[in-house]
Amino acid sequence: MSKYWSDLVHRLTPYVPGEQPKLSGLVKLNTNENPYPPSPAVMEALQRELGDGLRLYPDPNSERLKASIADFFGLAPDQVFVGNGSDEVLAHAFQALLKHEHPILFPDITYSFYPVYCGLYGIDYRTVPLDEEMAIRVDDYRAPNGGIVLANPNAPTGRLLELEAIDRLLAANPESPVIIDEAYIDFGGESAAGLLAKHPNLLVIQTLSKSRSLAGLRVGYALGHPQLIEGLERVKGSFNSYPLDRLAAAGAVAALQDREYFEQTRHRVMATREWLREALQQRGFLVIPSSANFLFVRHPQRDAAQLAQFLRDRHIIVRHFRLPRIEQYLRITVGQDAECRALIDAIDQL
Amino acid sequence: MSKYWSDLVHRLTPYVPGEQPKLSGLVKLNTNENPYPPSPAVMEALQRELGDGLRLYPDPNSERLKASIADFFGLAPDQVFVGNGSDEVLAHAFQALLKHEHPILFPDITYSFYPVYCGLYGIDYRTVPLDEEMAIRVDDYRAPNGGIVLANPNAPTGRLLELEAIDRLLAANPESPVIIDEAYIDFGGESAAGLLAKHPNLLVIQTLSKSRSLAGLRVGYALGHPQLIEGLERVKGSFNSYPLDRLAAAGAVAALQDREYFEQTRHRVMATREWLREALQQRGFLVIPSSANFLFVRHPQRDAAQLAQFLRDRHIIVRHFRLPRIEQYLRITVGQDAECRALIDAIDQL
Repeated sequence: MSKYWSDLVHRLTPYVPGEQPKLSGLVKLNTNENPYPPSPAVMEALQRELGDGLRLYPDPNSERLKASIADFFGLAPDQVFVGNGSDEVLAHAFQALLKHEHPILFPDITYSFYPVYCGLYGIDYRTVPLDEEMAIRVDDYRAPNGGIVLANPNAPTGRLLELEAIDRLLAANPESPVIIDEAYIDFGGESAAGLLAKHPNLLVIQTLSKSRSLAGLRVGYALGHPQLIEGLERVKGSFNSYPLDRLAAAGAVAALQDREYFEQTRHRVMATREWLREALQQRGFLVIPSSANFLFVRHPQRDAAQLAQFLRDRHIIVRHFRLPRIEQYLRITVGQDAECRALIDAIDQL
Repeated sequence: MSKYWSDLVHRLTPYVPGEQPKLSGLVKLNTNENPYPPSPAVMEALQRELGDGLRLYPDPNSERLKASIADFFGLAPDQVFVGNGSDEVLAHAFQALLKHEHPILFPDITYSFYPVYCGLYGIDYRTVPLDEEMAIRVDDYRAPNGGIVLANPNAPTGRLLELEAIDRLLAANPESPVIIDEAYIDFGGESAAGLLAKHPNLLVIQTLSKSRSLAGLRVGYALGHPQLIEGLERVKGSFNSYPLDRLAAAGAVAALQDREYFEQTRHRVMATREWLREALQQRGFLVIPSSANFLFVRHPQRDAAQLAQFLRDRHIIVRHFRLPRIEQYLRITVGQDAECRALIDAIDQL
């Protein structure tokens, strides 16, 4: 508390990111990082970028990176916005697109940063309950609204919404910007980017943190109609001219270009996820169907907080949210095979 | 323009950064980058950080970097805030500390991002004219205000305000947050960080882009009372948990630790500046006394825009601002000796 703070600051409740433990030797299944390293092509690109050039500002418009992203999705560069991780991209999108007369809508259980952005920008919001199977029902998003934000697959549930449902949602809300946050889409879903030609109100947000194993580099992007992108650029250009440093931009370009490595690693993660799902179900866990690189699970007879502590005592970290409706769930990142095996072995000690 | 934009977006006038030309072989004296490469210790640290670890999120609190900065200034880590370049740090500081009942004050001629931040966060401001010698008179900052922002040395003038004057300003405005933006302080001034123990309303902001030759890495920081820092952390934690990637943080730590290289390069820049100042004065230019890594100059008989174009035709880029009071000035970054020599040779062709 300080008299020097702007009024707003007193009312903020910042987001709490998952723990980044200082200890090594842990089985870290708590923040949905990819268990495989970034593509070797990323390392080569970073290596080339090290040098005297770091004394110079990066390209404020990240043109090479935008071109790579546009190329990957078959879009034009003016349909692409880039930022310092998808969290920054989301922040700019909330400020640029979601402050209107009516409250915005998002699920009651979803990425917990959304209400935080609303607090930061004074955006009214209303949450829409997931159904009993923890699924989003798009027909529940029919109220007058200033925008809609859905994570797909949703976090922390991992449940996928089919493209057909998103198409229906977009068509039913032509006056509202609709943000589809696809941080986890590459682990089993189909991107809504394919709907961009039909829907000028659609903004798709993705990240290189998960499926490209680059959480440590901080690169995210948005795809949308050039007018939506221009709105984001106006906010970004009023905030920070150069959010992507030279190394991050160079590494991101290489990651997007190495499609083969991307396909290999994401399919390995999906295969391990199915193994882990089955192993957990065999041990009595209820597992929400996941199209992400994590599983959202509960055990009918075990308290989730105690379970998380039991695993922690065995150097395995998973994420537990003390939040309504989900306090009996654990979110478990899909690790390498050996890490998932270690998790199951620990559970077998129960 | 788009109906999907928040109202605010229609009213924004984004900052226009200096050109980052795609051509090579230019004498680039337009964006105040350091002419010398980063410390070799930075390259070694970056080299060590390349690897599989990039799949993991960085420390959201950048503790190692905060400790290095605190160590450099003899402060505690909770007096340090870090961000993605000092532009991001400034943005958070404007939002966190400068929205109060009265308008904030800054000079009519200063870093042109300040009014842009005010636009982004709906902050009222009033500009206070520099005197005829382009100097800040702190006694002009006595009106009731919601905060004061001064760049020291000022940009684009390069003029330094003495610490004694800043001390006076702080004492005269005990109810206002006062931000001293020291992007260029290492080229001839003394940091106001030494006043922090006396003034809980002081926030000092610095960057590694200039005196540490790391514009390409995007690292800035703020120093202040723990309560001011907490205000910034609350905003940052509501915006983006991880603005500093693993490479940027590692490089920054190494840059701060290599004090010898820092001393050498900043003194070389200062020596070249004095040579360049004299050479320009001998050719009839009026040069504002500079404590920065650039000179702000005009020629009584030459139009500044034409002069900039003349230099550009000879592959030398300097910065010209089409703004009231300064449209007849050029801002010239201090380059390496040979670059400054090339500039003077070109001028001699006039």
